[in-house]
Amino acid sequence: MEMEKDPHDQTGSYVHAGEAFDRDMNYIPDRITSDGSSPWPVEAGRYRLAVSRACPWANRTIISRRLLGLEDAISMAIAGPTHDKRSWTFDLDPGGKDPVLGIERLQQAYFARYPDYPRGITVPAMVDVPTGGVVTNDFNRITLDFATQWTDFHREGAPDLYPEGQRGEIDELNHWVLHHVNNGVYKTGFAGSQETYEKAYTDLWESLDALEDRLSRSRYLMGPAITEADVRLFPTLVRFDPVYHSHFKANRQPLASMPNLWNYTKDLFQTPGFGDTVDFQHIKEHYYVVQTDLNPTQIVPLGPDTSIFLEPHDRDRFDTDTWGPGGTAPLPPKADEVVDPAHTPLHPTGR
Amino acid sequence: MEMEKDPHDQTGSYVHAGEAFDRDMNYIPDRITSDGSSPWPVEAGRYRLAVSRACPWANRTIISRRLLGLEDAISMAIAGPTHDKRSWTFDLDPGGKDPVLGIERLQQAYFARYPDYPRGITVPAMVDVPTGGVVTNDFNRITLDFATQWTDFHREGAPDLYPEGQRGEIDELNHWVLHHVNNGVYKTGFAGSQETYEKAYTDLWESLDALEDRLSRSRYLMGPAITEADVRLFPTLVRFDPVYHSHFKANRQPLASMPNLWNYTKDLFQTPGFGDTVDFQHIKEHYYVVQTDLNPTQIVPLGPDTSIFLEPHDRDRFDTDTWGPGGTAPLPPKADEVVDPAHTPLHPTGR
Repeated sequence: MEMEKDPHDQTGSYVHAGEAFDRDMNYIPDRITSDGSSPWPVEAGRYRLAVSRACPWANRTIISRRLLGLEDAISMAIAGPTHDKRSWTFDLDPGGKDPVLGIERLQQAYFARYPDYPRGITVPAMVDVPTGGVVTNDFNRITLDFATQWTDFHREGAPDLYPEGQRGEIDELNHWVLHHVNNGVYKTGFAGSQETYEKAYTDLWESLDALEDRLSRSRYLMGPAITEADVRLFPTLVRFDPVYHSHFKANRQPLASMPNLWNYTKDLFQTPGFGDTVDFQHIKEHYYVVQTDLNPTQIVPLGPDTSIFLEPHDRDRFDTDTWGPGGTAPLPPKADEVVDPAHTPLHPTGR
Repeated sequence: MEMEKDPHDQTGSYVHAGEAFDRDMNYIPDRITSDGSSPWPVEAGRYRLAVSRACPWANRTIISRRLLGLEDAISMAIAGPTHDKRSWTFDLDPGGKDPVLGIERLQQAYFARYPDYPRGITVPAMVDVPTGGVVTNDFNRITLDFATQWTDFHREGAPDLYPEGQRGEIDELNHWVLHHVNNGVYKTGFAGSQETYEKAYTDLWESLDALEDRLSRSRYLMGPAITEADVRLFPTLVRFDPVYHSHFKANRQPLASMPNLWNYTKDLFQTPGFGDTVDFQHIKEHYYVVQTDLNPTQIVPLGPDTSIFLEPHDRDRFDTDTWGPGGTAPLPPKADEVVDPAHTPLHPTGR
């Protein structure tokens, strides 16, 4: 495996004067498979999914695990929302250590695999519990493998998030959403010049306009049922008005003023497995505290009022088969994985 | 006249760690009067109003001058939206000099009056053209004197912005709006700690809720006619979503989601003398380029889309006597005082 030095270290500088933002897209490419094609076999209890609820790339995996009912097969380590230059840390856990891996920093799991690991310490990461080493941090692959390799452990009534007949179209859409929307907000926010900012902003809003139009024709991105495509778009949309609008200057208009995108966002937020993974306080703290390039005061905004995510939506005007044939909604989250009630409008004390 | 060193210099630091924002409220207190009570008599052509279209405190005076038709009696010097540590500058004018005062920086007019002037160089300022010195920069007084001292030069049909019978109530409301709203946004944005930010934010939104309620009962703040109170609130509201929402973290919700405040803002924006004084590009450039404490990248957001300021409003549901008895709307701005068409939605090419 070849690795280059990551040009964007964990917390130092996100904005490089005069430059466009260029995300390092090289990840540990190992896969966990069910057919013996890799040294990492699917096995209940063996792997631990390391996430931060703040991170949109990790949010995908948390949603996917919830929708598919993989909570008992794959445990979850939740890092705090802020991290230092070196690593995401398990500062939310008693004693500041992940209780299963016994480590304070996710960096330790990367070093357990590669003692000289030179790239960014990223979430999500699948960690092999027996050796304590990271198996993969390839976020684009992890959820696809949850959907296709972990089927023996899917809950009864789990949706097919990656149906064979739609894979080509889902892949194409996901690729476009990744570059223009998921990463488009970062290109807008981390632009190093007025010119690169304006280019990224224009591309982002053209892309959101295209999605607004697409979502005028069906309840979900691929039709009447939820798929992997929705799992990947939602984490960006749910962060849009709380963070990207202001902090990343993606401010042509609030997402809440775009009828289809906003009703779609509310619809998913209110769907089990989506909104119950979202911790708005972690999200805001992460961006506003860690990215001092953009917010040197590190003051975290009190707004926006997130109770509007619970307002009625109009998406049931479309043909609907949310969970697909024979599918059902997931049960509520496990007791120890419920989002802090003060950090979500799903609980009366939350903002 | 006693003067203390201004603790907040022009552009250096706006945010002081751990401290609440404390605006220096000491100004040159001279007045220009019509009754011989001051050495500065009302006299057409003698004084020049120095402003920046970016500044909300100056915006008041530009609106007041427009509504009262004082354009021919009091000329106007327009500084550029950004300034350095020393002064607002006339960099928009040919050769970088104000054509009447012949100066490059407003500081020169302050020094012409007080060679060692130690406080901030602020707009608005009334400058005595013969001596080139600043007469007053007391923004709380300038518009009241436009309304009460310059009556001989008011246009035909000028409104009475400060009616005798309402002065007590207007003064009380203006005082409250000044501290909780006009300056409340600055206290929110320049807070030096999470605690002082949250205190200022909470006070600001309680105050906006009170105004939302007040504006559910009458078209303007004092009833069916425009008064000084509206002239003072509008400059803050028109800057709210374009700047204060994101840059000052005053983001409980967009102003555009508050029905009475937003319809009131649109109503005034569409009223001659209000919206035609607003340069959104100058406003955004000022805050985002000058206040590097909050925006070190100095990137200026492309949004928000300001065409929504021209959308229909619902304020004609109230009793209306906009200009008061016998009053009429002002004529369009003078040709050389029209806002750059690219900087306003009033022109088809503007954003």
